[in-house]
Amino acid sequence: MSLLIKNGRIVTASDDFVGDILCEGEVISKIAPHLDAKADEVIDAAGKYVFPGFIDPHVHIYLPFMGTYAKDTYETASRAALVGGTTTLIEMCCPARSDDPLESYELWLSRAELSACDYSFHIGVSRFDDETAGQLREIVRRGIASFKIFLAYKGAFGINDQELFNTLKLAKELGVIVTAHCENETLVAELQARLLSEEKTGPEWQNESRPPQVEAEGVHHLMTFAEMTGAHVYCVHTSCREALKAVQEAHLRGVHAWVESVIPHFVLDKSYTEKPEFEGAKYVMSPPLRDASHQDALWAALRSRLISTVGTDHAPFDFVGQKEMGRGDFTKIPNGIPSVEDRVNILYTHGVCRGRIDLNTFVDAASTQAARIFGLYPRKGTIQVGSDADLVIYDPDYRGTLTVATQEMAVDYNAFEGWKIEGRPEVVTVRGKVQVQGSKFVGELGHGQLMTREPSHF
Amino acid sequence: MSLLIKNGRIVTASDDFVGDILCEGEVISKIAPHLDAKADEVIDAAGKYVFPGFIDPHVHIYLPFMGTYAKDTYETASRAALVGGTTTLIEMCCPARSDDPLESYELWLSRAELSACDYSFHIGVSRFDDETAGQLREIVRRGIASFKIFLAYKGAFGINDQELFNTLKLAKELGVIVTAHCENETLVAELQARLLSEEKTGPEWQNESRPPQVEAEGVHHLMTFAEMTGAHVYCVHTSCREALKAVQEAHLRGVHAWVESVIPHFVLDKSYTEKPEFEGAKYVMSPPLRDASHQDALWAALRSRLISTVGTDHAPFDFVGQKEMGRGDFTKIPNGIPSVEDRVNILYTHGVCRGRIDLNTFVDAASTQAARIFGLYPRKGTIQVGSDADLVIYDPDYRGTLTVATQEMAVDYNAFEGWKIEGRPEVVTVRGKVQVQGSKFVGELGHGQLMTREPSHF
Amino acid sequence: MSLLIKNGRIVTASDDFVGDILCEGEVISKIAPHLDAKADEVIDAAGKYVFPGFIDPHVHIYLPFMGTYAKDTYETASRAALVGGTTTLIEMCCPARSDDPLESYELWLSRAELSACDYSFHIGVSRFDDETAGQLREIVRRGIASFKIFLAYKGAFGINDQELFNTLKLAKELGVIVTAHCENETLVAELQARLLSEEKTGPEWQNESRPPQVEAEGVHHLMTFAEMTGAHVYCVHTSCREALKAVQEAHLRGVHAWVESVIPHFVLDKSYTEKPEFEGAKYVMSPPLRDASHQDALWAALRSRLISTVGTDHAPFDFVGQKEMGRGDFTKIPNGIPSVEDRVNILYTHGVCRGRIDLNTFVDAASTQAARIFGLYPRKGTIQVGSDADLVIYDPDYRGTLTVATQEMAVDYNAFEGWKIEGRPEVVTVRGKVQVQGSKFVGELGHGQLMTREPSHF
Amino acid sequence: MSLLIKNGRIVTASDDFVGDILCEGEVISKIAPHLDAKADEVIDAAGKYVFPGFIDPHVHIYLPFMGTYAKDTYETASRAALVGGTTTLIEMCCPARSDDPLESYELWLSRAELSACDYSFHIGVSRFDDETAGQLREIVRRGIASFKIFLAYKGAFGINDQELFNTLKLAKELGVIVTAHCENETLVAELQARLLSEEKTGPEWQNESRPPQVEAEGVHHLMTFAEMTGAHVYCVHTSCREALKAVQEAHLRGVHAWVESVIPHFVLDKSYTEKPEFEGAKYVMSPPLRDASHQDALWAALRSRLISTVGTDHAPFDFVGQKEMGRGDFTKIPNGIPSVEDRVNILYTHGVCRGRIDLNTFVDAASTQAARIFGLYPRKGTIQVGSDADLVIYDPDYRGTLTVATQEMAVDYNAFEGWKIEGRPEVVTVRGKVQVQGSKFVGELGHGQLMTREPSHF
Repeated sequence: MSLLIKNGRIVTASDDFVGDILCEGEVISKIAPHLDAKADEVIDAAGKYVFPGFIDPHVHIYLPFMGTYAKDTYETASRAALVGGTTTLIEMCCPARSDDPLESYELWLSRAELSACDYSFHIGVSRFDDETAGQLREIVRRGIASFKIFLAYKGAFGINDQELFNTLKLAKELGVIVTAHCENETLVAELQARLLSEEKTGPEWQNESRPPQVEAEGVHHLMTFAEMTGAHVYCVHTSCREALKAVQEAHLRGVHAWVESVIPHFVLDKSYTEKPEFEGAKYVMSPPLRDASHQDALWAALRSRLISTVGTDHAPFDFVGQKEMGRGDFTKIPNGIPSVEDRVNILYTHGVCRGRIDLNTFVDAASTQAARIFGLYPRKGTIQVGSDADLVIYDPDYRGTLTVATQEMAVDYNAFEGWKIEGRPEVVTVRGKVQVQGSKFVGELGHGQLMTREPSHF
Repeated sequence: MSLLIKNGRIVTASDDFVGDILCEGEVISKIAPHLDAKADEVIDAAGKYVFPGFIDPHVHIYLPFMGTYAKDTYETASRAALVGGTTTLIEMCCPARSDDPLESYELWLSRAELSACDYSFHIGVSRFDDETAGQLREIVRRGIASFKIFLAYKGAFGINDQELFNTLKLAKELGVIVTAHCENETLVAELQARLLSEEKTGPEWQNESRPPQVEAEGVHHLMTFAEMTGAHVYCVHTSCREALKAVQEAHLRGVHAWVESVIPHFVLDKSYTEKPEFEGAKYVMSPPLRDASHQDALWAALRSRLISTVGTDHAPFDFVGQKEMGRGDFTKIPNGIPSVEDRVNILYTHGVCRGRIDLNTFVDAASTQAARIFGLYPRKGTIQVGSDADLVIYDPDYRGTLTVATQEMAVDYNAFEGWKIEGRPEVVTVRGKVQVQGSKFVGELGHGQLMTREPSHF
Repeated sequence: MSLLIKNGRIVTASDDFVGDILCEGEVISKIAPHLDAKADEVIDAAGKYVFPGFIDPHVHIYLPFMGTYAKDTYETASRAALVGGTTTLIEMCCPARSDDPLESYELWLSRAELSACDYSFHIGVSRFDDETAGQLREIVRRGIASFKIFLAYKGAFGINDQELFNTLKLAKELGVIVTAHCENETLVAELQARLLSEEKTGPEWQNESRPPQVEAEGVHHLMTFAEMTGAHVYCVHTSCREALKAVQEAHLRGVHAWVESVIPHFVLDKSYTEKPEFEGAKYVMSPPLRDASHQDALWAALRSRLISTVGTDHAPFDFVGQKEMGRGDFTKIPNGIPSVEDRVNILYTHGVCRGRIDLNTFVDAASTQAARIFGLYPRKGTIQVGSDADLVIYDPDYRGTLTVATQEMAVDYNAFEGWKIEGRPEVVTVRGKVQVQGSKFVGELGHGQLMTREPSHF
Repeated sequence: MSLLIKNGRIVTASDDFVGDILCEGEVISKIAPHLDAKADEVIDAAGKYVFPGFIDPHVHIYLPFMGTYAKDTYETASRAALVGGTTTLIEMCCPARSDDPLESYELWLSRAELSACDYSFHIGVSRFDDETAGQLREIVRRGIASFKIFLAYKGAFGINDQELFNTLKLAKELGVIVTAHCENETLVAELQARLLSEEKTGPEWQNESRPPQVEAEGVHHLMTFAEMTGAHVYCVHTSCREALKAVQEAHLRGVHAWVESVIPHFVLDKSYTEKPEFEGAKYVMSPPLRDASHQDALWAALRSRLISTVGTDHAPFDFVGQKEMGRGDFTKIPNGIPSVEDRVNILYTHGVCRGRIDLNTFVDAASTQAARIFGLYPRKGTIQVGSDADLVIYDPDYRGTLTVATQEMAVDYNAFEGWKIEGRPEVVTVRGKVQVQGSKFVGELGHGQLMTREPSHF
């Protein structure tokens, strides 16, 4: 099975040239300005970009949360990812405090069988003791080389300082990176309680219940613990200037820290949570959407490479029946803004087309850095011989509109309803197989594979 | 004329794989795991790295300074660069305040005729008025898309605030970047005078005459001016924590700023300036070597991508007869630590081999970022089809010692005399032509070309 | 001549008690809970505060500026000061660049002859050369122990870096403090030009022409120069968070720096400059009124003693005929918000009554610190035996309204027109003489004296 | 009973003049340049300073710690305090986690019966639940208007985040201030364990077991919790630049935070812990003595009023038999550097005499601010009519040496053995009674009283 993509403008995190790519079997076998090779399938990409398959390092698909379940399955989520150009998902495997990590991992893994794209997991550490430590070692041995911890979600996922230290110490020993949700859980719980007691119950109060200082506190805390243990850490969904500053200071002290921000924080602000008819609930995530002034800082941090990756924290809950659970109590609104399908197009439109970032930075942030940080590289994250033939032929001339009416995500709204985009994937391949053509999913469910990863600090 | 490099471990800023590279004419024409192409010359790079040709974005070759001249010519400096793996030099063209930029540019350009490697220039702006503005526009039109300014060197190169503003404004209009030496000139002059008046005349006083605060003041000043004009700026030879912090703060405000540091600041500290017998003079440069505690911050900043490039500020003055001019008055010691030949090997040895940075960061900092920031990319700075065939086959098994006895630089000492290195270039090509083989210069003088560059912010 | 004030609540920067004060001649001679002394005049202050006479460390009275003259004379300004509780003024003596400091000083001094309150001067340094240095020494010898410099007002008062260094060096030698207007002059001039060229000509553009970064740049610059010279410095009319932060950082490096802010910045914001019918011009001063968010930082800094003094930068220009000069060009609006009369009442009402500061901090900031920093202490700034009998009997039960209709200031508007105040001086004495009684000026013009001061760092 | 002190140079936090003070009964009744009053006792203070009695806001006297007891009793500690010029002690009442606060308070209180100086307590909160909350309310009602919490000392005194929030919330409700020991307990415990496991067991490892980052983390954490609750907080024994910076940042955000530092941190550094023969153990306290570079920052912060108070954290353990418990394990060395007797003399000698602070700042930091912050003012902390007649007649001409041989503290070493001092108290009164004369304790045990205090934010 071979595939020849001709005449595309090939753009990676550091390259940009017009040429041909030959894929044989599952991998890229040749790159040259002109290849005369025979191939089973030939695609002319003239006038199009060819990007490495994008990677979303932060999604939730199977997600029991607040007594309900996120709506996507791998069948729907992986289709959505693919039509949006994302060829690899890293899902948060989130055992509750009372669950066994290994059982949880197996449960999560079993859910992914029908995935149309590749995938891996961060294994959640919501309890740390000798038994979980042993299971975590086993999970790492099986190729899951990253942990996820929560400093937030008291009583559910949140860990205490001793567990934090021990988790980082184990991570350092094993050479795995620790991804962290950084908000102080006690402050969140108390601010929520205070707001509710003042009858401030609508989604517009979400930001005030977990303000920037509470996130910055979490980040500052993590940085100190990382400094003292030497562990490598990664702040997920960083949303505000204060948190970025805490990482900058840590960098100068030598802390090994990386920053992820997610697409909603770049383009949405807290005014969305004030939408009438409880529609604001669609925009409830944690950390919350912020005052618009933080967006400039995020874009600037992306441009100056302080932010390494742009993910989604995709967590798809329906408005009807799910988000609605929080009527009268915003703390009961399931968190999440579904965006796995739209991340790449929004980042391209609002980043590249608006001149905020260049093409290489776009690829770096949406693909390459995730691959490098999480050990998927060089299989994923770039276009080079030997790499998996995960390729996105992207049409910069497309003009269209995001809408729930046409989306693949199995959720009853689109947070970006009616937004214009200025480009989209036309063809997407996963390990050499065309899964999207004509911007439609034409592929095979179950084609996706688990990407195991080696622990190794870098 | 064609060249096939086989079996090398090809490493770019974002890639790392084993494969073959075919160069035809001056450019790379094919990259694949195995190429069966015929070629005029075939080199087996098994067990070796293949890096893109390294770029030194900050060198002085023709340099009238303090009444004397730097010792290198392009004949010597380009050979030194090449055996050290550097295939492109960007020289500072430094007109004095009374010189015409255009005449200066032509003078500098004429000196480079016999260069064995490629080269370009930053055009110095040491005076700004209507006439110089016109000449600067012409120089940019000729392909020199970067300015160099000095906030230091009062009366010689230093410009005042009005000139600074006008230079940045013009740069913004033209889309060229402004590289800047950031030290407050008045403070330097006054601190020098004070020290001399206290009979503190030896090279060990250099650091105290231009302490970190004076550099940080310059950087802070530049950041504010860049913020107000929108110009893109680049801080050369950044040496201290305080200066890095000033850039971090500016980044969060959206300032388009890049940071260069130079190899001496990563590995040498101010104790070297205390060497007896006036030998400390060999280590006098500006900004001066700092307290060793700053080195950790520099490495951390490099790792976290706050520092984009590692250059040299190569400025080769003999110890005998030149550095000695400053006996009894350290302000008369010509500035500079010759290192164009050793930059790459030191960065590899003390960075990669010591685990401070990974291979991709090494290539990014020593080659790719310089190409991207200064508009040489994608001709230079990466290994991709269509790029210039500037390649470095690097032997990681070599063990050797730096010494003046064997160096190509035309200067009578080596600042790193006796230092061990753990790798070196074995073969170096410039646009497809082998200029170094067996780690010796075997090439042709005059093969180097002027690299013109398009102005364009990114 | 003796005066006995009985039963008042005596409040100084560190004390607060009920008692009697006996003044004999010009000074306080006894303080006790109950004094049975005979006195020529006895005032019952029961239910009232007795404060030390307030000091305004930053006023302009004789002020040629932009081709016109501020409206107050000492006759009007000192009456206004006194009814507002201010018993000592320190005026900025502002020679133009071409003027001789000594001649200017004599001119300014001569204007003050009819002052009803005490006064001193900061001597402006708008040029530094051997001749001015000699004159400055003479002026200091005559008892004017503080300099004033401008980093702003290019071509008029602004000094360059060399002059800055020399001024600070001389100040350090003489032991006098340097007060400084910190805004980068070039940036202001260029931003003004840019706005005017974009036809942004109204007073509402004033803030954008000298944004917080431009002030912070000035402060940062001054801090570095103060650090390198060891001079003591004092930032006048500090208006924004960014500038405060620059001083905080300097404090931790050991810089001897003090911060003044002025009453308009605590309670007015830039929205006032947007008033229709060009009325915004009444609110034009430099640094400009800021976004309201800065006010919280100013109050917090006052409470935590980062801000030492609250002055006015009183500069009284009529709206009609003077402020109006800037119709069509905001840069031609004479700068200043007249407030020497209202400073104390506003600070009391919006500070003490609103719970933002306590009574001792109020006295400290409006009187004591100015006395201490500028060498008036212990003659002024406190209530202690031997100190000048400058006393303010303050009625906290008064409720009234600020209005041009009843003010003493010789200017045709009141920037706080219609504002409520919750207290005012009832009796004010200057060196034992009752100058205000029943909240009316009843005193004698010409009673005021020049306060000479000893240079001495503290 | 009356006392007349004549001709002294009276210095308070804001005053400085020569005069007479008449004390009648327990209070100051008159202050004037010359008082002819009759008095039972007349002291001529010509050539001497008269200071308000000094206050040490942070001492331990009754202190069960690590299985042993601090050596001082109120009999010894109050004598030591008095000969050192300290007339009021605020002791930390430290219930263990399992103790009842009220019982503890009564126990601590009972120990103070024989005190020769006045005293009060901070009530420790080492557990927070409904029961303790009730008892805390009762203790506050009894006049103990300040809490003490530990973020350090895991398992002993340390409280968790929920308790921290609740304590601050209660403090805010009651209007009492919360003093806090800010070091992250988990990090301390883990770093101790790591060092011990590496056989780093001597006192010289104390600093590394609780480095500046760990203290800064504690301070940052407290600042965020204070911001979110609105409580007033006070950081005890702040030792490093990083912690000071965290408070500065909080100040600009409006956090009500005060900083104490203690005398050892101003003048001792970590090199003392390296003394041979285990003598370093004498210098073990927490936070530990730091690198000497932090001292400049502490003095600068004191001068610029960021640091409000200078206390001691007096905790007197013998070297023999107590400090020695930690041979072979530095974590078992009882913490503390006895200094209640020497604080004032060292601060005067190394602060005032060395030109680092002026006299008023000295009084402010060693007396007035403690009185103001903890509600002792205006009874204590100043010299004004109506205040307690706690006075220190201080001889600036005395020259002497600190030594265990002559000290009053009941401990077998003096950490400042052999240090020169340049002044000392000659006479000390407590509420009008002469307790020290000729620099010797001549007073009465049991004269001291409990100072109850009103809760009230300021």
